[in-house]
Amino acid sequence: MTKCVYAGSFDPVTCGHIDIIERAAKSFGKVIIAVPVNIEKKYTFSKDQRIEFIRKSTAHIDDVSIDTVDGLLVDFVKAKGAGVIVKGLRTMSDFEYEFQMASINRTLSSDIDTVFMMADPKLSFISSTLVRELIFHGGSLKGLVPECIIGDIKKYIGGEKS
Amino acid sequence: MTKCVYAGSFDPVTCGHIDIIERAAKSFGKVIIAVPVNIEKKYTFSKDQRIEFIRKSTAHIDDVSIDTVDGLLVDFVKAKGAGVIVKGLRTMSDFEYEFQMASINRTLSSDIDTVFMMADPKLSFISSTLVRELIFHGGSLKGLVPECIIGDIKKYIGGEKS
Amino acid sequence: MTKCVYAGSFDPVTCGHIDIIERAAKSFGKVIIAVPVNIEKKYTFSKDQRIEFIRKSTAHIDDVSIDTVDGLLVDFVKAKGAGVIVKGLRTMSDFEYEFQMASINRTLSSDIDTVFMMADPKLSFISSTLVRELIFHGGSLKGLVPECIIGDIKKYIGGEKS
Amino acid sequence: MTKCVYAGSFDPVTCGHIDIIERAAKSFGKVIIAVPVNIEKKYTFSKDQRIEFIRKSTAHIDDVSIDTVDGLLVDFVKAKGAGVIVKGLRTMSDFEYEFQMASINRTLSSDIDTVFMMADPKLSFISSTLVRELIFHGGSLKGLVPECIIGDIKKYIGGEKS
Amino acid sequence: MTKCVYAGSFDPVTCGHIDIIERAAKSFGKVIIAVPVNIEKKYTFSKDQRIEFIRKSTAHIDDVSIDTVDGLLVDFVKAKGAGVIVKGLRTMSDFEYEFQMASINRTLSSDIDTVFMMADPKLSFISSTLVRELIFHGGSLKGLVPECIIGDIKKYIGGEKS
Amino acid sequence: MTKCVYAGSFDPVTCGHIDIIERAAKSFGKVIIAVPVNIEKKYTFSKDQRIEFIRKSTAHIDDVSIDTVDGLLVDFVKAKGAGVIVKGLRTMSDFEYEFQMASINRTLSSDIDTVFMMADPKLSFISSTLVRELIFHGGSLKGLVPECIIGDIKKYIGGEKS
Repeated sequence: MTKCVYAGSFDPVTCGHIDIIERAAKSFGKVIIAVPVNIEKKYTFSKDQRIEFIRKSTAHIDDVSIDTVDGLLVDFVKAKGAGVIVKGLRTMSDFEYEFQMASINRTLSSDIDTVFMMADPKLSFISSTLVRELIFHGGSLKGLVPECIIGDIKKYIGGEKS
Repeated sequence: MTKCVYAGSFDPVTCGHIDIIERAAKSFGKVIIAVPVNIEKKYTFSKDQRIEFIRKSTAHIDDVSIDTVDGLLVDFVKAKGAGVIVKGLRTMSDFEYEFQMASINRTLSSDIDTVFMMADPKLSFISSTLVRELIFHGGSLKGLVPECIIGDIKKYIGGEKS
Repeated sequence: MTKCVYAGSFDPVTCGHIDIIERAAKSFGKVIIAVPVNIEKKYTFSKDQRIEFIRKSTAHIDDVSIDTVDGLLVDFVKAKGAGVIVKGLRTMSDFEYEFQMASINRTLSSDIDTVFMMADPKLSFISSTLVRELIFHGGSLKGLVPECIIGDIKKYIGGEKS
Repeated sequence: MTKCVYAGSFDPVTCGHIDIIERAAKSFGKVIIAVPVNIEKKYTFSKDQRIEFIRKSTAHIDDVSIDTVDGLLVDFVKAKGAGVIVKGLRTMSDFEYEFQMASINRTLSSDIDTVFMMADPKLSFISSTLVRELIFHGGSLKGLVPECIIGDIKKYIGGEKS
Repeated sequence: MTKCVYAGSFDPVTCGHIDIIERAAKSFGKVIIAVPVNIEKKYTFSKDQRIEFIRKSTAHIDDVSIDTVDGLLVDFVKAKGAGVIVKGLRTMSDFEYEFQMASINRTLSSDIDTVFMMADPKLSFISSTLVRELIFHGGSLKGLVPECIIGDIKKYIGGEKS
Repeated sequence: MTKCVYAGSFDPVTCGHIDIIERAAKSFGKVIIAVPVNIEKKYTFSKDQRIEFIRKSTAHIDDVSIDTVDGLLVDFVKAKGAGVIVKGLRTMSDFEYEFQMASINRTLSSDIDTVFMMADPKLSFISSTLVRELIFHGGSLKGLVPECIIGDIKKYIGGEKS
């Protein structure tokens, strides 16, 4: 069984992310979800909220763990004893950026490889950015983020706005 | 240990293919190389020559087997008891075509997933098409196809030309 | 009410094409489906078979007519008194080719404009090319071409093969 | 006659925008230009300036109206009784983003469709971003924004700078 | 003064090609136009017709010479004492293919470099393929190929058709 | 001998930049490196640090000069008596943006042309953005920026952090 790491901002986690996690768990066995703690980047949801969303949304998947990553991803992957980074590809722009990241990570640590899974076509248009725009304008999130976190999202955002 | 299938025309196998096979073997354990037998398609090298090239070029990798595939790839993957199709990505155009194939294969058989590995940047410009053009014009193949098959390529092509 | 022309090889018509036709009929009113008769191009299905497939598959849509086009598309559009060419976009490669065609058609006839509709994400991986590969290998066409023509496709191809 | 909505930041309106508006008016009949009021986004020109630029630049086109949009675009489109969103495509990156937006808007409201018009090749390199850079560095705007607003642009920017 | 080589099928030469040749002559000094003689490829116009079209269309440009190339382009470039291959870029697909070719040529001969010039936006939609389709269907070539060869094109094609 | 201008942020200069500068010097003769002074943009390294990095990294290349540019690039190019702008292309996204810039520069000054050189495949994944992320997280810069400036980078960043 290979351990793999799936990293992202998850601000918030979407149905597209969950689809990738489910499939990575099936192909690799164990999935470690890496939530970056980048103090320079401004998130809509706090680190704890983002982790809670992922935990609720992956409760039905075995062999998933969640952790925060503070430095270089390759260092995190090595520390965890994993050999594979899993990335989801939705668009050409993803492809270019991820190609660069995979190449540089391979340069930094030749023991770690990156594999890519393509988004389910019917979920490929979902991004956290679009979800945040819908949250901001009060649009429906049904089918875009896991059902079980829609209530929490509204609660946290409502709290922020009031 | 997951079994994965790596399919391609391999007409002929290139250093880029071998790089993907080595990395797939490390990430997944067992790699089944699927050589299509498409009677409608014209190849430069015969089925037996293409298989021989792969066999020589992968002699140093454990857990690699080679087989021919005659019908749908998903049927082959199921018959072999594998769960994953591995594809190499070099370019955007690859990306589009492979995205379509991965989607249709997932529709045909939801148990089978496709994962993608990106070509090593310093090998990403190598394609079998370009190698065939070099062979035709007598250009050097050094660094483009495995060292151990360069002699055979010249022998077979020379034989065809004489 | 604007008349629009939707052109393609339709070899054979897919669920993706029908989705575009339905939406074009809603946005423009009248849709003229143009089936090219290109004697230089080899089709899997005859002109009459391709037209029959479209007729069956669009029986539920009002204001659709089907015609063959033999010369330049812009001449056909003018002869029909239509002002708009509708094209479906699935991929980046579509985008590039269609951009060129739209530009050249606009040069040839400044009265005619091309508008693009994007494929439904869950149908965007379907192409006639992939459908033909599945037909050739005996794969299931369910969800890829309209239900009502699957029987005919098998009949015609079976007839060709025997 | 179909009503369509054409939305953008128009900061400022360019010759490329006007080309799309003229062609949309011809293909659809009535065009409602939607100027977003996004308090989170910083514009170079105020809402009133951007609207004035559009009004002057579209004075020669019948059946054009201008309005501000504050929430989700699909809600605006529904409120206006329009059925179609028109977007201009210049580049591949446009294509990817607009594909996502069209898909999400279709999910939010299945009655509303998005159609795309490609930029005139000789205008396709013009973007508001590039125009703003030229304004900032004092470059000539001739052929990039409508002649009739060049004087106003200089007046407003000069006023800001002094 | 650097000598550069500009290679292409030129079947037939278009206004886009001439634009690149004019600009290459200005930037590099001397341009050698290389017309490939690929016996495996079927052309619409003969080698002599293609060369005649180029000669007529470049009569107004100093320091242009035309030659045929039979083997590898890099060998031709070396034999001519040139150091630079010039390519025109129109589209993303051009970009990918040319990127591969430039990389492989650099591998074959590190002394030779490839530089790219982008097509004039208002000519970027013109390709020899589209021109041939227009010729076949009797469409107008005005603005797509140099004025001085339109008569010859019609004469040669008419001769072929009769 | 043609003078060419190579412009970029160089924040910091990478091995990819140096590769382009070396090749431009060989193809064009004289290279003027233009470092923009954009008071609106925030850089990681100061103007003087960025220039010092370039000077050290290009000490081995003849006919290179470095200058700052404050207004429009085309005005700078004209003032320097150069006729060519050289740009490096690494990705599709580069391609789109640079295509727009080349077009607009050609509109602003028809005497100035832009030529593109493609990155060496084995350096094509290196960008200043990625280098800055590595600097921030303490990753190794070996092979990504010229050896001779690694010490200075660490010194300047260390100084900033303390």
